[in-house]
Amino acid sequence: MSIVVQKFGGSSVANIERLKNVARRVVQEKKAGNNVVVVVSALGDTTDELVQKARAITPHPSEREMDVLLSTGEQISIALLAMAVQALGYDAVSFTGHQAGIVTDTSHTKAKIVDIKTDRMSQELERGKIVIVAGFQGSTVDHDTTTLGRGGSDLTAIALAAKLKAEKCEIFTDVEGIYTTNPRLVKEARKLAVISYEEMLEMAASGAQVMQLRAVEYARNYVVPIHVRSSFSDVPGTMIKGEETMLEKPIISGISYDTSQAKVTMLGVPDKPGIAAKVFSAIAQASVNIDTIIQNVSESGMTDISFTVESDDLPAAQAVVDGLVPALGAKGSLYDPDIATVSLVGAGMKTHPGVAAEMFGVLSKHKINIEMISTSPIKISCVIKKGQAETAVKELHKHFKLDKG
Amino acid sequence: MSIVVQKFGGSSVANIERLKNVARRVVQEKKAGNNVVVVVSALGDTTDELVQKARAITPHPSEREMDVLLSTGEQISIALLAMAVQALGYDAVSFTGHQAGIVTDTSHTKAKIVDIKTDRMSQELERGKIVIVAGFQGSTVDHDTTTLGRGGSDLTAIALAAKLKAEKCEIFTDVEGIYTTNPRLVKEARKLAVISYEEMLEMAASGAQVMQLRAVEYARNYVVPIHVRSSFSDVPGTMIKGEETMLEKPIISGISYDTSQAKVTMLGVPDKPGIAAKVFSAIAQASVNIDTIIQNVSESGMTDISFTVESDDLPAAQAVVDGLVPALGAKGSLYDPDIATVSLVGAGMKTHPGVAAEMFGVLSKHKINIEMISTSPIKISCVIKKGQAETAVKELHKHFKLDKG
Repeated sequence: MSIVVQKFGGSSVANIERLKNVARRVVQEKKAGNNVVVVVSALGDTTDELVQKARAITPHPSEREMDVLLSTGEQISIALLAMAVQALGYDAVSFTGHQAGIVTDTSHTKAKIVDIKTDRMSQELERGKIVIVAGFQGSTVDHDTTTLGRGGSDLTAIALAAKLKAEKCEIFTDVEGIYTTNPRLVKEARKLAVISYEEMLEMAASGAQVMQLRAVEYARNYVVPIHVRSSFSDVPGTMIKGEETMLEKPIISGISYDTSQAKVTMLGVPDKPGIAAKVFSAIAQASVNIDTIIQNVSESGMTDISFTVESDDLPAAQAVVDGLVPALGAKGSLYDPDIATVSLVGAGMKTHPGVAAEMFGVLSKHKINIEMISTSPIKISCVIKKGQAETAVKELHKHFKLDKG
Repeated sequence: MSIVVQKFGGSSVANIERLKNVARRVVQEKKAGNNVVVVVSALGDTTDELVQKARAITPHPSEREMDVLLSTGEQISIALLAMAVQALGYDAVSFTGHQAGIVTDTSHTKAKIVDIKTDRMSQELERGKIVIVAGFQGSTVDHDTTTLGRGGSDLTAIALAAKLKAEKCEIFTDVEGIYTTNPRLVKEARKLAVISYEEMLEMAASGAQVMQLRAVEYARNYVVPIHVRSSFSDVPGTMIKGEETMLEKPIISGISYDTSQAKVTMLGVPDKPGIAAKVFSAIAQASVNIDTIIQNVSESGMTDISFTVESDDLPAAQAVVDGLVPALGAKGSLYDPDIATVSLVGAGMKTHPGVAAEMFGVLSKHKINIEMISTSPIKISCVIKKGQAETAVKELHKHFKLDKG
């Protein structure tokens, strides 16, 4: 009997009625003749409420205790969902992360899965039970509770699917799948039937919110087929799978964009070996994550270095750079919080070298200045003014006929 | 360094402000030079809210899943209390029942403690940490979560105190200690400085609500000195300890009463061997708990059997008895939901045989008819009409000068 892993996010179980709906979907899969493992997140706003409770006590709660606190959210969900499945006449058993055998390292609030001991789970599946697992959590070898960080429940589902050699992993969410771009911005946005892990990674890295990078990476590494679909309807969603299994690779699968970044430029930096290392190790020490870095060829022994950071990190980055400028003998610095990154993503791009030129042409035609460019084999990203992002996404979507499929 | 176990009930941690107060008390004990283990219940109404969620899903949730659900209440408390203690600059670590090594049998919702593995806890205490344990819960050898039933948090505290050979176990609650009788009924009620385990057991069994029977029994068996005191003030409460350690035993320590029972009488039951066994095994099969049983000497081969049950169980008891009356050839049955049990409790009673007569005299003087009498070496209970309970308790309290100490 094959195993199906289903994951339901917080909005899918936001209230008792939705939770009962989830129970019906789970039972439907069991009735179809599969062994079912369900991974569930905390109900609706539970996690936010718990965080507020902690903040009311102390601005800097210990990470170990945050994990003990936050893991209760998913624990409530598994118990209630097990009850709801049982109320439909099916046998179910709930497991916390610890009971599910999810062993992690000791990095509280952002733990990494190091092992999954599925003996107990396999026993219960063999007995015909529906197994309901708390997402987002695990435990250390000392039985300390840990959480997996953002996107943790997706990761739980995909890791279990990999370990159990599940036939598929269904990620139920509040959207119907992966779209060519954000449907709230472009009404012609089209749901993709299929997308490769690599494309999904580029989409997630450049602003698409449906799945977290870590979970997609894990799925790619263990070749777990994912089906992203709506928990509120029965229509098929988007399959995420290996590129090699896709018969036809679209040149462009989608357009993602990100308006949460800011640009930092150091002007007239002496072009000597070791300078870039100095700059970026100083930035890293301030715990600022960097996205794109651009350094142009130097003229007269000087160069400009630009990079983008999360807007929230701009003050920290600014403090570091303001100190570096005199120390390195640079000429000055510029800060621009008013930018957007627009990215074309497509596995077929590798074999179609004209795409970049076409993209620049579309932007130029609409008087959109390109401030930075970065590329990967399956992605082209342009940094532009934030106010022009909407036009850029709409026009690129139209030009590349993404609404047509 | 000696160990102190402190237990705080739900009302002591009903909100964040109270939780911070508890943290201060805990730190105070640590500053006094003791190793501190804290047992904490779920915050305020958390447990009731969780029960409501389960009931919204199904009227008969599985007991295993109820335990998974309800145990989150205490888990939230331990995390928040650990944070609050840490915010005061002290090192603290939280443990769920499982992490605290509390191993139980598999009787979900009313599990019995079968072992406590305190190695990890002892390690953390040796490192100088304040250990905060979730009350009311444990886990089976298979790591399934269990709860200990009513009074479970008291039991956790007392069991840990016994295992750790703690110097004392402090039970913090919303009253200042054990009183000679309910202070809401008799304003002259006096707080007892000390009471024996046996007296406390009789008080708890006959209506006093401060501590559950199971917890007191455990404390008596393992000779754990208990200090029942208020979490809202610093005044000393009531010590519960072994009778043999008490220098002077008061004749009467307190008066408890219970208005939650109903009386059942079977009239004209043939007085033959085996009849009582038939009656009470039938009642037990209906899961009805019996308190007092009275059977008088028989006249002309017939006897009357009376017993008291919880009022909630009266319909079930009635159904059984209505079937038994014709089956046993009895003459009929009577049901009276309108009763109260008033009990005098005191270790000194054993050596003062006149107390019963004196009690009956006081009741008679106030025209209170006694319907049933039962006694133990340290208790005399009378079943009377419910409407006369208040007068009985007040007059007995006055007559035996319990307000004088």
